[in-house]
Amino acid sequence: MTIDLETLFEATARAVEARLDAALGVRPHDGERERPPRLVEAMRHAALGGGKRLRPLLMIETAKAFGRTDQGVVTAAGALECVHCYSLVHDDLPAMDDDDMRRGRPTVHKAFDEATAILTGDALLTIAFDLIANEDVHANAGTRLTLSRDLARAAGLGGMAGGQMLDLESENRERSEDEIRMLQSMKTGALIRYATRTGALLADAKPEDVARMTRFGELIGLAFQLADDLLDVESDTATLGKTAGKDIEAGKATLVALKGADWTRDAVKDLVREADGLLSTLGEDGARLSAIAHFVAERRA
Amino acid sequence: MTIDLETLFEATARAVEARLDAALGVRPHDGERERPPRLVEAMRHAALGGGKRLRPLLMIETAKAFGRTDQGVVTAAGALECVHCYSLVHDDLPAMDDDDMRRGRPTVHKAFDEATAILTGDALLTIAFDLIANEDVHANAGTRLTLSRDLARAAGLGGMAGGQMLDLESENRERSEDEIRMLQSMKTGALIRYATRTGALLADAKPEDVARMTRFGELIGLAFQLADDLLDVESDTATLGKTAGKDIEAGKATLVALKGADWTRDAVKDLVREADGLLSTLGEDGARLSAIAHFVAERRA
Repeated sequence: MTIDLETLFEATARAVEARLDAALGVRPHDGERERPPRLVEAMRHAALGGGKRLRPLLMIETAKAFGRTDQGVVTAAGALECVHCYSLVHDDLPAMDDDDMRRGRPTVHKAFDEATAILTGDALLTIAFDLIANEDVHANAGTRLTLSRDLARAAGLGGMAGGQMLDLESENRERSEDEIRMLQSMKTGALIRYATRTGALLADAKPEDVARMTRFGELIGLAFQLADDLLDVESDTATLGKTAGKDIEAGKATLVALKGADWTRDAVKDLVREADGLLSTLGEDGARLSAIAHFVAERRA
Repeated sequence: MTIDLETLFEATARAVEARLDAALGVRPHDGERERPPRLVEAMRHAALGGGKRLRPLLMIETAKAFGRTDQGVVTAAGALECVHCYSLVHDDLPAMDDDDMRRGRPTVHKAFDEATAILTGDALLTIAFDLIANEDVHANAGTRLTLSRDLARAAGLGGMAGGQMLDLESENRERSEDEIRMLQSMKTGALIRYATRTGALLADAKPEDVARMTRFGELIGLAFQLADDLLDVESDTATLGKTAGKDIEAGKATLVALKGADWTRDAVKDLVREADGLLSTLGEDGARLSAIAHFVAERRA
């Protein structure tokens, strides 16, 4: 069985972009007044400017593995992607990581201005909770509410935002291996875990399958972060589409810095091996998820 | 009938602070990893540092007027207050209104730093969607989901965040009366309208009562903003607990600047008169809501 991963990524990205394109129009939703064109434009710059759409792909492929393939899954994936894009906009701000480029284009505060970038992140985060509540996401309102609350917990002070806080505090400060793992499981792990867990919940998978796919997300979240840390030391700015070597320069705590590149490459392999083991009963769907896990671990940009 | 408004404000503020104190502890919720102490501390600085708790009071008193008084109403009010506090933290940032003082204390970016303030606002906004999903808010998960989605719409690009965008764009640029009204109905009106509307929904009020209390919130939202604009030109920094005269200095579009203080005072009176007219059937509860409306319109700080 061969998996054409490139085509899969492209098709998913197109579906997610189309959903975000519709959500980020100028026409207000019920209960909204008007949508300021400048803010809409900046949100679209942040959310529609390419990107691999890895988290949406993981959610959509996990839902597919448990039998659900309709458009509502794309809506939920779009909500998650809005949270991811908000985090990029705020992380790029001068007071945070101070990045001028993202996905080969100027960051929002460069293309617009800082105040607009702050509001753009705020509004992308906020609209995620509008999207995840959409009727097509799941027939049961209680399930939609659970997905909304879980998204808040994955994104907030005990998840992604908290991880970014720990990361900022790590600059030029020693961190133990355990501390770095906790930081990474929050900063990048929480949303990736949310992606696969939510995929299973959207398809009404059995509790043991939800637990298994939650663990799968956790493992590839860790692998993703380690691969990212490796890329930061091994790649260059042109290939990355963002500034290379920034983490090292900022004195940020990474496992690559603590344990070395060889150790890290081995750790990534172990994570992917464990992740693969969770997919054995899923047939062709499992093979696709496995291919994504390998892509995450072995990517070069 | 005399209403002791001061005691009412104080009792509500205490109840809301207690709820926020519990929500903003270091112990993680299910699905969260750990809560970084520095971020918790900054969120507590932003959310527990006093404030009138006007929006929670409006929600709680509206729910009471339609027969609901339990703790779940305070949870929903706490969610709304988190959104309000997040907006203050981000609005105070150097790239936005650049304020050093808030409620007589240093703003978050002054007491901590800019990156922490950005994350603090992000995490306060996010936790609102955890709180509003809490079981005690309403027995019906579908109602909780509606309240969550409505909160996103009131807070986001077609509500408060969009209003702040329009406000920033107004600096040193002419705005018509209609444009200023739209801006204000989004920037401050949307959350106040959400407060009274949600109060009615929490109590399962009849649709015509929900519509009436939505309109009530709209009217006092407008009155609140006009009173705020009057205060900016008539008060001083010590009384306000924030910098006075900033709007004028920034060349911001207000109706006071466009139509004058006398016209604005008359407009506030008209708004409160119409708001009062909506409360005629609500007896003592209506009298309390009326007293709050008059307080909003006539406050001197």
